[in-house]
Amino acid sequence: MRDSILYIAMSLDGFIAATNGGVDWLRGQDPDNLDRGGYDAFIKTVDTVVMGYNTYRQIVTELSPGNWPYPGLRSYVMTHKEIEATDETVFTDKPLVRLIDELKAEDGKNIWILGGASIARQLIKENRIDQYHIAIIPTILGAGISLFDSGNDAIDLQLVDCNTSNGMVELQYIKR
Amino acid sequence: MRDSILYIAMSLDGFIAATNGGVDWLRGQDPDNLDRGGYDAFIKTVDTVVMGYNTYRQIVTELSPGNWPYPGLRSYVMTHKEIEATDETVFTDKPLVRLIDELKAEDGKNIWILGGASIARQLIKENRIDQYHIAIIPTILGAGISLFDSGNDAIDLQLVDCNTSNGMVELQYIKR
Repeated sequence: MRDSILYIAMSLDGFIAATNGGVDWLRGQDPDNLDRGGYDAFIKTVDTVVMGYNTYRQIVTELSPGNWPYPGLRSYVMTHKEIEATDETVFTDKPLVRLIDELKAEDGKNIWILGGASIARQLIKENRIDQYHIAIIPTILGAGISLFDSGNDAIDLQLVDCNTSNGMVELQYIKR
Repeated sequence: MRDSILYIAMSLDGFIAATNGGVDWLRGQDPDNLDRGGYDAFIKTVDTVVMGYNTYRQIVTELSPGNWPYPGLRSYVMTHKEIEATDETVFTDKPLVRLIDELKAEDGKNIWILGGASIARQLIKENRIDQYHIAIIPTILGAGISLFDSGNDAIDLQLVDCNTSNGMVELQYIKR
């Protein structure tokens, strides 16, 4: 059984995007340092990416137009829109928890839960995240879209790794 | 000029207390490990503590009755109640920001902003925190009293230290 990994960056105050969705603040304390921390090691451990439609749209229209950033990975985009699959990208309106349970039952590398907040919150609430890999950006953003929702059951974690890179702190937890 | 330091613990999802104020979850991943992380080193760097009245009441009635935990430090408790000062503890209804500005202008060691959320949020919003020293408890609490408010200006930080102890991660930032 492979793991689902929420690998995401948030501000110290828990925001993953500005109120308008902006992510230009997702960087370390030295803007000229392009070190991507543990990303290159992490990406080799997954073969599947799950994301919401808004996240998908932001990637293809704004963050990386014309240059899909996850080549070689199978991506699942959660949407009720009917969009034709490509070789690597599947658009699905399957219930999210069922999709994750089915993917976890398949053989393969781990599954990256990319976001956004709606996808992450559902899977945290339904306890479908096996590993939390959270990078803390050295900023108190002050407002925006929170990673975590309020009103869930507590989940006790075990820290398995902690690395810093350009002021960003990458925390890796499994469930206790 | 000495620094004001917000030294506080929060869950990964940013809560400093449960909804009922409970703090029994403020511990590392091994409950038998009583390591207090950087506390003993930190406490030597301050001579003044600032706290709200609810925090004070919780300390003297529940967390440490009959055994004041900050001997040798000058404590300021924010309250409109008229309570007689002791040798070490001053009760004041002075506006919080003015108190902090006056304390910072005095000579001495650093000033510990102990909490709770209302005190911390006011000083974050008014940009009166010089150092953020945040311990992340290995728990997603799911609900409770948030450290951070929403609707503030962004504050860019610089990571100056990061230590782990029994699954807790102590992050130390100054302002950029």
